[in-house]
Amino acid sequence: MGDCFFCKMAKGEIPTNTVYEDGDVRVILDINPVNPGHCLVIPKTHAANIYEIKPDVLSKAMAVAQETALKVKKATGCDGINILQNNEEAAGQTVFHFHIHVMPRYKGDKAFNYKTITMTDDEFKEIKNKIKMSGVYEI
Amino acid sequence: MGDCFFCKMAKGEIPTNTVYEDGDVRVILDINPVNPGHCLVIPKTHAANIYEIKPDVLSKAMAVAQETALKVKKATGCDGINILQNNEEAAGQTVFHFHIHVMPRYKGDKAFNYKTITMTDDEFKEIKNKIKMSGVYEI
Repeated sequence: MGDCFFCKMAKGEIPTNTVYEDGDVRVILDINPVNPGHCLVIPKTHAANIYEIKPDVLSKAMAVAQETALKVKKATGCDGINILQNNEEAAGQTVFHFHIHVMPRYKGDKAFNYKTITMTDDEFKEIKNKIKMSGVYEI
Repeated sequence: MGDCFFCKMAKGEIPTNTVYEDGDVRVILDINPVNPGHCLVIPKTHAANIYEIKPDVLSKAMAVAQETALKVKKATGCDGINILQNNEEAAGQTVFHFHIHVMPRYKGDKAFNYKTITMTDDEFKEIKNKIKMSGVYEI
């Protein structure tokens, strides 16, 4: 993955605002934050998304996201935190190297929202059965 | 946590649209979905949020979220997936029992967005150092 921007950042080949680093991950400030202290947890091993990341790499990244959340909460005094991980362009992924957002939030900041739909009981039942019976997506 | 709604759902004491269950977690359809197939991964052990969840429970929940993402992707044919976990009311948490959203997305569905802010290099440096030097938030 010689051309992957986040591989280069994770390895320290491109300057970042790093708040934590170990052998497996680097945690940096997002240059497009929702609020000050918005961090990205980036595994050093390349995987494009959650479909293909190895379970042990995912587990470590999530453990570091938890630690990062506790540090961001303490450092910023924020009122809440979103943990967000986007997969594919349709879901807002812009860099195709798996990463986890740790986003400090404040009451009324309106930084973030999503809209919901209404479904009938039959529609719920249909999609439930489809997912229950489904194999897994293969990349 | 006798009055926790999600504890009761996780234990099967309240009806849900369950797509997966094992000894540690239950995966159900969110009744307020962004799109059909929007799931919630709910650990059976109570923790209010990411600040207080035990690392092994978090790791298992995330592993199941990954598996759920692969099944939802296969079952719905969606164009992308968001993994979202909200902590505290300011971040949109409405049920105070840790859970992970697995949200199918489609090109142009506008289900979900967040707005970013602009920061100077000095502001980045200041918050970076604050987080680096920070202990962890204690609940």
